[in-house]
Amino acid sequence: MVFQDTIKLAPQEQGATEITDLISDLIADSKIKIGTCQLFVHNSLSSLLINDTAGESTKSQTADFLAQLAPSSDEISSEIDDSMAAIPETMIAAITQTTISFPIKNGKPLLGTWQGIYLWEKTMRPKERKLTITILGEH
Amino acid sequence: MVFQDTIKLAPQEQGATEITDLISDLIADSKIKIGTCQLFVHNSLSSLLINDTAGESTKSQTADFLAQLAPSSDEISSEIDDSMAAIPETMIAAITQTTISFPIKNGKPLLGTWQGIYLWEKTMRPKERKLTITILGEH
Amino acid sequence: MVFQDTIKLAPQEQGATEITDLISDLIADSKIKIGTCQLFVHNSLSSLLINDTAGESTKSQTADFLAQLAPSSDEISSEIDDSMAAIPETMIAAITQTTISFPIKNGKPLLGTWQGIYLWEKTMRPKERKLTITILGEH
Repeated sequence: MVFQDTIKLAPQEQGATEITDLISDLIADSKIKIGTCQLFVHNSLSSLLINDTAGESTKSQTADFLAQLAPSSDEISSEIDDSMAAIPETMIAAITQTTISFPIKNGKPLLGTWQGIYLWEKTMRPKERKLTITILGEH
Repeated sequence: MVFQDTIKLAPQEQGATEITDLISDLIADSKIKIGTCQLFVHNSLSSLLINDTAGESTKSQTADFLAQLAPSSDEISSEIDDSMAAIPETMIAAITQTTISFPIKNGKPLLGTWQGIYLWEKTMRPKERKLTITILGEH
Repeated sequence: MVFQDTIKLAPQEQGATEITDLISDLIADSKIKIGTCQLFVHNSLSSLLINDTAGESTKSQTADFLAQLAPSSDEISSEIDDSMAAIPETMIAAITQTTISFPIKNGKPLLGTWQGIYLWEKTMRPKERKLTITILGEH
């Protein structure tokens, strides 16, 4: 069985926004009890992440960490200055996820106790984001 | 057809432990001959990886490389010192994989000659880890 | 329904080569209209990426960025010099993707307007690469 839906998420602040509850509701709608769930974002300026839900400081530090991975060599920096703020986000896209997948059991996401699903907004000028959920499995 | 099982892995040393044989046995148990295999770890302090099986030195160097990606700015470091050793691992979680997927053919993982499946243990205080395997496909 | 095929790609230059059209053709061949597509490369020296198709400069800068993530500490560098040029690529494999997945709708990849599928060739000595496509879904 295949269930597929494309939803729109309102613009979110830069950083991580937990969307576990929203996704759990869509899985319940699908009536699929066991299988896999695939989430896909339709752009390169936001990404998806499964990460620890314990503690706000952890989340903000992850943001600092990803920011620090942005290029710092003179050659790259000057091109960034010349072009646009969008460029470092595109580079970060190379090591972050457009798609995440996880198991479904008993009609729910089968995540660890401290795991949550996050939309990662990379730009300071966030927009509405399209997200497609595709669930494969059985009733 | 859907096959799903959740298994427990004994605590492993920090770094990469190859689990290809264990996963191959679970795929054989599923009786599914063609399809996809999804592996998911139920925590953020270990991750999954498909990487080169050739040579022990390659594996230890990957560990050094990931360690080097950990944050080094004064602002982040001081927060890490104040909090706990667990924090850098959470940051590394942002760029490593909770889920990996690969094809199945003839009832076996369809990997390259030099590819293997690894559990990546990020903490020096390893625990038993839960892993869910979900296989979708046909006999 | 399961569709699976393994194809060979001619050797590509180091960096990103867009393969969206090739993959779209394979999806059309499968006759599957709705579901998920999984792509898998059979080696650790190339990887797969969904990224922004807008602008050549973005692509070359992503290459510079990934190159910069390669290890630079003295201890690691000396081991690299002693061993082979292949080693940094293996490390980069730890944070790049052997497998990518995305949704299929109406018999086509359901990507964003500016998203494309890329093979990322990490070595300067590229070879023919094997790629397996596995599509799960319904007519």
